[in-house]
Amino acid sequence: MALGEAEADLAIINGSVVNVYNGEVEKASVLTKGDRIAYVGSDVGKAIGPSTKVIDAEGKTLIPGLIDGHTHIDGPYSISEIVKYAIVGGTTTIITETSDVGSPLCYQGVIQFLRSAQNQPIKIFITAPPLVTLSPVTEEHATTVPQLRKLLRRKDVLGLGEVYWGDVVNGNQRVLGLIAETLRQGKKVEGHSAGASGKKLQAYASSGVSSCHEPINAEEVRERLKLGLFVLIREGMVRRELEAIAPIKDDDAVTNRMAISTDGVAPEQLINNGYMEFVVQKAINLGFKPVRAIQMATLNVARHFAIDDEIGGIAPGKYADITVIPDLKTIKAEYVISNGRVIAHNGQLLIQPRKHRYPRSMLNTVHLDRDFTADDFAIPAEGRQARVRLIDQVTNLVTREAFINMPVTGGQLKTDAGQDIIKVAAIERVYGTGKRFNGLIRGLGLKKGAMAATDVWDCGDIIVAGADEADMALAVNRIKELGGGIVVSAGGRIAAEMPFRVAGTISTESMETLADKFDRIQRAAAKLGAKSTDFALTLATLPSPAIPFLRICSSGLFNLKTNRFVDLIVE
Amino acid sequence: MALGEAEADLAIINGSVVNVYNGEVEKASVLTKGDRIAYVGSDVGKAIGPSTKVIDAEGKTLIPGLIDGHTHIDGPYSISEIVKYAIVGGTTTIITETSDVGSPLCYQGVIQFLRSAQNQPIKIFITAPPLVTLSPVTEEHATTVPQLRKLLRRKDVLGLGEVYWGDVVNGNQRVLGLIAETLRQGKKVEGHSAGASGKKLQAYASSGVSSCHEPINAEEVRERLKLGLFVLIREGMVRRELEAIAPIKDDDAVTNRMAISTDGVAPEQLINNGYMEFVVQKAINLGFKPVRAIQMATLNVARHFAIDDEIGGIAPGKYADITVIPDLKTIKAEYVISNGRVIAHNGQLLIQPRKHRYPRSMLNTVHLDRDFTADDFAIPAEGRQARVRLIDQVTNLVTREAFINMPVTGGQLKTDAGQDIIKVAAIERVYGTGKRFNGLIRGLGLKKGAMAATDVWDCGDIIVAGADEADMALAVNRIKELGGGIVVSAGGRIAAEMPFRVAGTISTESMETLADKFDRIQRAAAKLGAKSTDFALTLATLPSPAIPFLRICSSGLFNLKTNRFVDLIVE
Repeated sequence: MALGEAEADLAIINGSVVNVYNGEVEKASVLTKGDRIAYVGSDVGKAIGPSTKVIDAEGKTLIPGLIDGHTHIDGPYSISEIVKYAIVGGTTTIITETSDVGSPLCYQGVIQFLRSAQNQPIKIFITAPPLVTLSPVTEEHATTVPQLRKLLRRKDVLGLGEVYWGDVVNGNQRVLGLIAETLRQGKKVEGHSAGASGKKLQAYASSGVSSCHEPINAEEVRERLKLGLFVLIREGMVRRELEAIAPIKDDDAVTNRMAISTDGVAPEQLINNGYMEFVVQKAINLGFKPVRAIQMATLNVARHFAIDDEIGGIAPGKYADITVIPDLKTIKAEYVISNGRVIAHNGQLLIQPRKHRYPRSMLNTVHLDRDFTADDFAIPAEGRQARVRLIDQVTNLVTREAFINMPVTGGQLKTDAGQDIIKVAAIERVYGTGKRFNGLIRGLGLKKGAMAATDVWDCGDIIVAGADEADMALAVNRIKELGGGIVVSAGGRIAAEMPFRVAGTISTESMETLADKFDRIQRAAAKLGAKSTDFALTLATLPSPAIPFLRICSSGLFNLKTNRFVDLIVE
Repeated sequence: MALGEAEADLAIINGSVVNVYNGEVEKASVLTKGDRIAYVGSDVGKAIGPSTKVIDAEGKTLIPGLIDGHTHIDGPYSISEIVKYAIVGGTTTIITETSDVGSPLCYQGVIQFLRSAQNQPIKIFITAPPLVTLSPVTEEHATTVPQLRKLLRRKDVLGLGEVYWGDVVNGNQRVLGLIAETLRQGKKVEGHSAGASGKKLQAYASSGVSSCHEPINAEEVRERLKLGLFVLIREGMVRRELEAIAPIKDDDAVTNRMAISTDGVAPEQLINNGYMEFVVQKAINLGFKPVRAIQMATLNVARHFAIDDEIGGIAPGKYADITVIPDLKTIKAEYVISNGRVIAHNGQLLIQPRKHRYPRSMLNTVHLDRDFTADDFAIPAEGRQARVRLIDQVTNLVTREAFINMPVTGGQLKTDAGQDIIKVAAIERVYGTGKRFNGLIRGLGLKKGAMAATDVWDCGDIIVAGADEADMALAVNRIKELGGGIVVSAGGRIAAEMPFRVAGTISTESMETLADKFDRIQRAAAKLGAKSTDFALTLATLPSPAIPFLRICSSGLFNLKTNRFVDLIVE
């Protein structure tokens, strides 16, 4: 076809084409055949024939389809919902972690997610979850080297997902084994070095990790690049760093080796702002050169993952993944082309994402052998007073350890709303082990009621926190009925709820319904007194080893500084 | 170790370290453990202990071990001879084509080469040979998709070797199948687009090739980069383009996506100039910024092949492959460290390359069922005159087609030294097929004698050219006795010879002996009248489809422009 000996399937003519390889913009036509680009240039010859679909892009600009290089789309939305938002905004490739579905269901969850991601109108690649967890139950089922080997042999698996630096530097042998296997197969080990610097960062880099998406300022970016790490800047749900990083915008040696990504986007953000197009637009608004902002969301990502022979630029031989925008500074998709097909036009889907039918095994993952009662959340103690180790919630996400003396009443430790001390429990729900643990937490703000959730990070537990044990039981029992989700209860009634029927972490409802329900959940929690501006996220992160420093799982309290389980009652 | 909790194995202290990631040079110490770098910085703490080997690099500069990203070391020297020259000059990684050993022995030859390259003091990676050939015999044994799949699963196989653009654009189905399989496995397809431009180049790029090492000027470099191809500049045996490319030296967007390589180095060049250190030095002398010249021979190559997580820079986690040089502008290895071991010091080997014992199957590859006589080179013809298609040798390498009328004498076409027309024959020697072809060639210059060789490109033939049929037979018979090699004969005697006992393409002699014998061969050929300044190379390239345009193999004459076999006698 490039030789002019065959007709093009699609011709996008007269536009300005952003060449991410040499950084130039030139007037050219793009011809495609099947799912690939065959020709980019001014001499279309006889390639436009009766069967050629022609898009006149006069006055418009063509950029490669956007790539999100680090995100989490394996929940809370179903695959078809997030793909919709990708399509209309001009994102044609998503590279996602799979820890949300991997944490409860491990290898089988990842396989099921891969099935859901196949045959979609855009490309979805994953990184396999290392499943760094506090929970011995999850650890027992976590990714093994033979499982990882199978996953890495697939073309849609680009490497090992974010391995938190603490576990690597502490020498977790299973995780080091996964890293070694990934390097053996020549694929990427994605890093996560939040807060590491100096020798600790060098020790972490020594393990073979290839990237970090956690730098929060220009200095952290430079320190990581210098060590040979690729850097992805986050602008998404949990953190937004583009503005803090912007001082680096004119340092070409740096921005050449950098990408922008979301690290996960909340439903409400998708609805209000859009997806990767918002991130690229923001970079441009902050003063990044437009072509560089586009490179950071296309070619640079593709090069990092060594998939740049197939995507990331508008050139012959690459997949025909192209987004047509009004001009270089306005990242608003007018046409979106993926695999040579026009999949969206002016915000309208022309091709629907495939709705995935999840198998029964994914729909039945909350295994509790009976209903809970208030008594299940009792914390027995001896004597008249006990010295207690509290989880002390100091930000939406960060906790520390606090020790206080509490009275023992009727052989139990009770919540103390006056001191903002309430109960928190972790209940293993995937494997039916019956394992659970009750602890105490300070600083959540709840004066009454409870919230329970199954969409928690890095293990397969239900986390429930409450000022009232009967409401805690009610929330957990409702979660059991729903087959997973988030439930807020108060005064013996359900105040708000959202089901996550798939794996306990994925909703099958529409993005709009999801955003609405998240909003209701947060408002219900706030009514109970919750201080966190995202109480569902606060609860979900309590079992995560990624965030400092006293955490909880169904096996107990875990101190990340000393890397061990610690007692609730210390004397 | 990076944490300062263990002793370093090797500490290179007080040197200036070239950081290829950010382009800066900083005073730092490098600590290694095992085969890896563990720390780069100023705080060595307690890492230097009684068991640490210390190199004081005060006043010196540390650069990553050099990488040759495109070359041919599968002949004519044995692996241990080329590795010697790599070591003393500071080259710690070689990425080589395997067509020299692959052309005669196909898959088995590649497997044997890989064995010879294992457990050497430096790293050797290969690309698998597509074996683009004119010869139907070689084609029958050429790389299949299942063989390629096996090769590509190996970590030391980085992709598919140079696929000549003509065959791709002409739609050779076997070759297109090999490309598809390589892309499926996420590895690189190395390109070879000499002379292609415009639509033909775009058609070639459409196939999925990732690079080209053939541009001969700045414009060709830019045209390829724009299409998303990685560019390697050659400075070696067959061609030297650095000087012509130099005008591009300050265009950072270009030099970031470019490498320098040798594409093969002759023994005499290795002895007189050295290996990759000569190429980097020449780039610096031509005005490339020294750090950029070093990047083009280290990080840029590693990134192209997606092995930059392990080599290409001095950073924690990378292999400890380091060359210590006097200063940034003087690429002269004082210490060479590979896999954490000091392997050379001031031009002296401290670790010997492993001498490979080639198996019997590699030592017995010239299969001729009988001795040849002058009569075997007769060209029968009818009538009194014939119109003949000549190979017309117009440069050392390039041929074209010429038609002349020749007298038929005694039922034969004879050589005509007056018009510089002599005999040329191709004899299949690997599979014992007995296939052979006699033709006529003009412009070689031989007035008497003959030369025969087995180290020919892209097939498993003996090529013999001569002004005298008896000398042609003598040369071929001597090759049979030697088990492969190059032989010059004249007046019934052997004038010069060099054996290539291994595969008919590899000598087991020392580099110095090889250089000396190549020199003797050339002088003997010149004495016979040979015009080529490298007559052995001229002969070796006659069956190659990589060079225009009338070529020869044991099945006949092949016209590359029409892509078909053509007759010697046309009417």
